[in-house]
Amino acid sequence: MATIKDVAKLAGVSVATVSRVINNSPKASDSSRNAVMSAMEQLQYHPNANARALAQQSTETIGLIVSDVSDPFFGAMVKAVEQVAYATGNFLLIGNGYHNADKERQAIEQLIRHRCAALVVHAKMIPDEELAHLMKQIPGMVLINRTLQGFETRCVALDDRYGAWLATRHLIQQGHKNIACICSNHPISDAHDRLQGYLDALHEHHIPVDDRLIAYGSPDEIGGEQAMTELLGHGKAVTAVTCYNDPMAAGALSVLSDNSIDVPGQISLIGFDDVLISRYLRPRLTTIRYPVVAMATQAAELALALSTSSPLPETTNMFSPTLVCRHSVSTPRSV
Amino acid sequence: MATIKDVAKLAGVSVATVSRVINNSPKASDSSRNAVMSAMEQLQYHPNANARALAQQSTETIGLIVSDVSDPFFGAMVKAVEQVAYATGNFLLIGNGYHNADKERQAIEQLIRHRCAALVVHAKMIPDEELAHLMKQIPGMVLINRTLQGFETRCVALDDRYGAWLATRHLIQQGHKNIACICSNHPISDAHDRLQGYLDALHEHHIPVDDRLIAYGSPDEIGGEQAMTELLGHGKAVTAVTCYNDPMAAGALSVLSDNSIDVPGQISLIGFDDVLISRYLRPRLTTIRYPVVAMATQAAELALALSTSSPLPETTNMFSPTLVCRHSVSTPRSV
Repeated sequence: MATIKDVAKLAGVSVATVSRVINNSPKASDSSRNAVMSAMEQLQYHPNANARALAQQSTETIGLIVSDVSDPFFGAMVKAVEQVAYATGNFLLIGNGYHNADKERQAIEQLIRHRCAALVVHAKMIPDEELAHLMKQIPGMVLINRTLQGFETRCVALDDRYGAWLATRHLIQQGHKNIACICSNHPISDAHDRLQGYLDALHEHHIPVDDRLIAYGSPDEIGGEQAMTELLGHGKAVTAVTCYNDPMAAGALSVLSDNSIDVPGQISLIGFDDVLISRYLRPRLTTIRYPVVAMATQAAELALALSTSSPLPETTNMFSPTLVCRHSVSTPRSV
Repeated sequence: MATIKDVAKLAGVSVATVSRVINNSPKASDSSRNAVMSAMEQLQYHPNANARALAQQSTETIGLIVSDVSDPFFGAMVKAVEQVAYATGNFLLIGNGYHNADKERQAIEQLIRHRCAALVVHAKMIPDEELAHLMKQIPGMVLINRTLQGFETRCVALDDRYGAWLATRHLIQQGHKNIACICSNHPISDAHDRLQGYLDALHEHHIPVDDRLIAYGSPDEIGGEQAMTELLGHGKAVTAVTCYNDPMAAGALSVLSDNSIDVPGQISLIGFDDVLISRYLRPRLTTIRYPVVAMATQAAELALALSTSSPLPETTNMFSPTLVCRHSVSTPRSV
């Protein structure tokens, strides 16, 4: 591959001049600019982004850590951050943490080694102290879906507990009392907070908690199938189920459909996140909306502003989820 | 942030020695290795990946271009390539081409500027000659889902035409004659080849082609809804529909369900790709399996081997799709 020296030689200018042209410096004359551009094209020269990054001690790159890019929820997050990167002339570097402390640590370290000045990090497993340490070192690092004490203005999170309370209250308002909860078995705050929101709503309405109505699974379709199967196995008179997320609700719906249990006629079902699939299930899924695009966009803009010491954009640090009523919830049959 | 000079100073060694320790050179003594490691930890020093890349004229990075990372099909592709990268100690750099020649061009240029030696490229819009030019420059560049003349051994593609023929023949074998085709309106070879496979099967069975039974839309749920609505609008006696992909089939199913048209009782429906959603639709979607994980894994391994001049892995350059029978196809009612 051609080097900057080859370009300089062919254009009959110095290496410094080629560098000025590449970096759009006003110091380059029009005639040398034309000579350099023509030599670059003739030699198929691609400027080295690593050299540029090294010289400027920063890269035109936003780093993003998600849990798993193949999960549609994180796919939407990646796309939102990528659009901010594209609009601001930056490139996106992505790492997956897979809800594993070591992988999260390694992915963040890689982004720092690549000198991404702006970092949007979704990491749930790294301990608070360690994360605080990194936040102090990297001024352009922003957390998404996690609030870290002392760094609240650099966090963009969702009130998960309120969202789950909203879902459960909606079921209670329809007349349900025997409400099961399908939970995620990942040891992360989202799982804890969403369960807590369910318990809050029951307590508020003086409905006793029955541990056999709380089932756990991996936060995907298969986990939802397993948890729903477990709930049906108990033979309890459940009339409604609140689910950790939409994929789990899709799995639960699949088990209910296979067992000819009508939704919402016999059992009402509510999801969380409002990912695309929820609109294509039958019945269409009633769910809680997670404004992931707005949140990821704000996090990326905030990270960029922090990394360049620009004026900070107005940011909502704690977003509120909202109820999306579709067709999977009705009044219980006996009411 | 601490620099390599700070580390050298604190450890009482030269910058060259710090560099040897970072690069695991056998020339570094145990005592200087310990001094450097301890200084690095004390100063929170993160080696600069850009400097390393520049010195070695290559990066430990696989570059990947997809059309749109938030599409579940591409999410699966990203995850497969990322797992190869992870297993081989590489990092993944991702660009989106959005089926737009300029964006594909820009994304590839960025990966080249970052000196990714191994590149897996899903680009459908860049003309053949331009792509051939890039393939000649970058020995570690592999194409996925496209076959480029002269570079067949560096392409990993699927026989789309055969897949669509398989889907249509399955409907014909069930007794269908009035078979509609929902196509993608993207001007890419996949769209053309899948339509051609549908036409092949009709011709082979002497079924006349009716242009009003061919409808186009964007290759997603909304495009499928629009195309199905258009087909119903013609009032033709359609008994089966073959769809460009599973999201379009999900959209079509949604319109049929809203109009109380039973699937497969009144209309049979078949998808393409076998993405996760197809198992959670009701009825479960009969579809054509696109082995995206196996294909993306092979493409990544091939790109790595080519970029390091290692022995090439055994690669299937043209994969075959297979039929997945679930519950959305049956014999036509009148048979």
